[in-house]
Amino acid sequence: SQTLKIATIAGDGIGKEVMPEGLRVLRAASQQFNIPLEIQTFDWANCDYYQQTGEMMPADWKAQLQGFDAIYFGAVGWPATTPDHVSLWGSLLKFRREFDQYINLRPVRLFEGVPCPLAGRKAGDIDFLVVRENTEGEYTNLGGVLFEGTDREIVIQESVFSRIGTDRVLRYAFELANQRPRKSLTVATKSNGIAISMPWWDKRADAMAANYPEVAVDKQHIDILSARFVLQPQRFDVVVASNLFGDILSDLGPACTGTIGLAPSANLNPERNFPSLFEPVHGSAPDIYGKGIANPIAMIWSGAMMLQFLGYADAHDAILKSVEDILKAGPHTPDLGGQASTQDVGKAIAQNI
Amino acid sequence: SQTLKIATIAGDGIGKEVMPEGLRVLRAASQQFNIPLEIQTFDWANCDYYQQTGEMMPADWKAQLQGFDAIYFGAVGWPATTPDHVSLWGSLLKFRREFDQYINLRPVRLFEGVPCPLAGRKAGDIDFLVVRENTEGEYTNLGGVLFEGTDREIVIQESVFSRIGTDRVLRYAFELANQRPRKSLTVATKSNGIAISMPWWDKRADAMAANYPEVAVDKQHIDILSARFVLQPQRFDVVVASNLFGDILSDLGPACTGTIGLAPSANLNPERNFPSLFEPVHGSAPDIYGKGIANPIAMIWSGAMMLQFLGYADAHDAILKSVEDILKAGPHTPDLGGQASTQDVGKAIAQNI
Ligand SMILES: CC(C)[C@H](C(=O)O)[C@@H](O)C(=O)O
Ligand SMILES: CC(C)[C@H](C(=O)O)[C@@H](O)C(=O)O
Repeated sequence: SQTLKIATIAGDGIGKEVMPEGLRVLRAASQQFNIPLEIQTFDWANCDYYQQTGEMMPADWKAQLQGFDAIYFGAVGWPATTPDHVSLWGSLLKFRREFDQYINLRPVRLFEGVPCPLAGRKAGDIDFLVVRENTEGEYTNLGGVLFEGTDREIVIQESVFSRIGTDRVLRYAFELANQRPRKSLTVATKSNGIAISMPWWDKRADAMAANYPEVAVDKQHIDILSARFVLQPQRFDVVVASNLFGDILSDLGPACTGTIGLAPSANLNPERNFPSLFEPVHGSAPDIYGKGIANPIAMIWSGAMMLQFLGYADAHDAILKSVEDILKAGPHTPDLGGQASTQDVGKAIAQNI
Repeated sequence: SQTLKIATIAGDGIGKEVMPEGLRVLRAASQQFNIPLEIQTFDWANCDYYQQTGEMMPADWKAQLQGFDAIYFGAVGWPATTPDHVSLWGSLLKFRREFDQYINLRPVRLFEGVPCPLAGRKAGDIDFLVVRENTEGEYTNLGGVLFEGTDREIVIQESVFSRIGTDRVLRYAFELANQRPRKSLTVATKSNGIAISMPWWDKRADAMAANYPEVAVDKQHIDILSARFVLQPQRFDVVVASNLFGDILSDLGPACTGTIGLAPSANLNPERNFPSLFEPVHGSAPDIYGKGIANPIAMIWSGAMMLQFLGYADAHDAILKSVEDILKAGPHTPDLGGQASTQDVGKAIAQNI
């Protein structure tokens, strides 16, 4: 089989601490499953680089990364030196958009060994996927300010939804739901308040649903949908949402399973015209950086999703099985009530594959 | 003291069932506290009226309501006959905007007797207020569709934030936080993703914070903020948010306390240039309409907020005390595990004042 070319970008904060453990587990899986890996490290797309150069990435970043199968990404953001909208728009959001990673896939699952903030739920009760549109919608820098600096100041912010962008994420979500035993898809909307884009989004969902008669579709407004993540999390199977709504739901879902620090994500260009990107959801966590206590599981699980996407479902399953074992039996980092270090957990998961 | 002129609009679905109980309690409180009430009923702003006339409200709705101190509102929406964006934009959202009810105030509180979906929380642990901007922001019908009906279709949706609109909701929230013992204010944002309006919103919050040195301010992105409603609800005191973010947070908050069916709201024009509007958060709930089992507490609590706003804080406190008693001891409607009817609960709360 062909060598997988992986670009790694650790980024900022705990991104730098969890990356080595992600790589440790990736290498263990590659040995076990005979996956030829070629790994190359990139030292830009972080706020130190920005402080030195005034840019988050070199001008030829796209050319440098274009040949890779995937980008394995830690976390970016260091608000003490660099405003978030500068660091994010200069790196992560650029990748998502310019590499057309239009699917952001985020699993939500309740594990044994992870204290659940919801009462009376047990492992297996919660197991769903958030499919988030990842290139357009509410995340734009279009618009502007009128009467700037005066009492009459007015700001316009534009959201942009294209039929191409909307249909492809809906199609992906319907396909995914169709492959799962429950065949159930929840479509996040807010057509009762956001009066142009969301009624249109609903119509696109209806049109797509006509192609998937076996999928049970349920449109829910984002306010009540958020509430139901807390009240009835067992009812969800696949949830599809716009960029912003998907962002909210894919933090809220993991929060409901106690796995905010464990949640992985895949930023996919399904056609593989560009490298896809795999990253933990947790961000750079300045408050705990430098202590060696960050939980590396989100990074490791993201690596598993990367192998799955690149054709090694068996390696994915083995890593996830190992993660499940360690979550059950320890060692645990402090966020899960343990005393283990980032390294301890990474090593345990690698050895257990 | 002056007669309070209250306009009642029951609206659709369970709005029609909970309104009589809200009025029952209001009348009981008015007797007890000698509050002169004049109540007038309006039979429009509902989907039946829309089916008959093609409009949600008569042309002179504003003139009809202008003289009232407050509107006591049930719920609007009947999707089986009328799309939500038609019924809502034709009534509730019109009131909010044209009566300049720029504050939407929504308390979140954990009560004894209400099963909490979060593990290990007890009454008193959660007690905060969501202050939502209620007239502008993400809720607009500005924008449009290009290349309509083709594969190149593109939809633009515009959000509009004014300095006037933003500063006044921030000021209200800072004032409120400043009066509370904890003096803590959380500002919802998404400046790392929504690149024009939200960094600007952050700047307005910073500018306002300079006037309130005693208030501890914490800006949080809406994704992680939603997560923290589940994980650390005890940390919140006052939360201020844009129209959309406030909508989400004020459903999620009540969900976290098990009080989705109990949550009240106040749509305030603090200057009293226009009538303010008081309504349950729950909506018209077509699924349970007609059974007489809707929980009337959100309607009743909204009535208490109305009396408070109109200067009768003692009546508010007495109603809320009665609600607390009934939540503890019953009778309970089925949503709280009981067998009581809407009427049973309304009568019990009225008698207990
Ligand atoms: C019905 C809908 C338009 C409304 C809103 O989004 O404001 C409701 O959810 C609310 O919170 O009052
Ligand atoms: C950091 C931020 C721009 C990003 C997003 O909002 O997409 C993050 O929250 C995420 O979910 O990946």
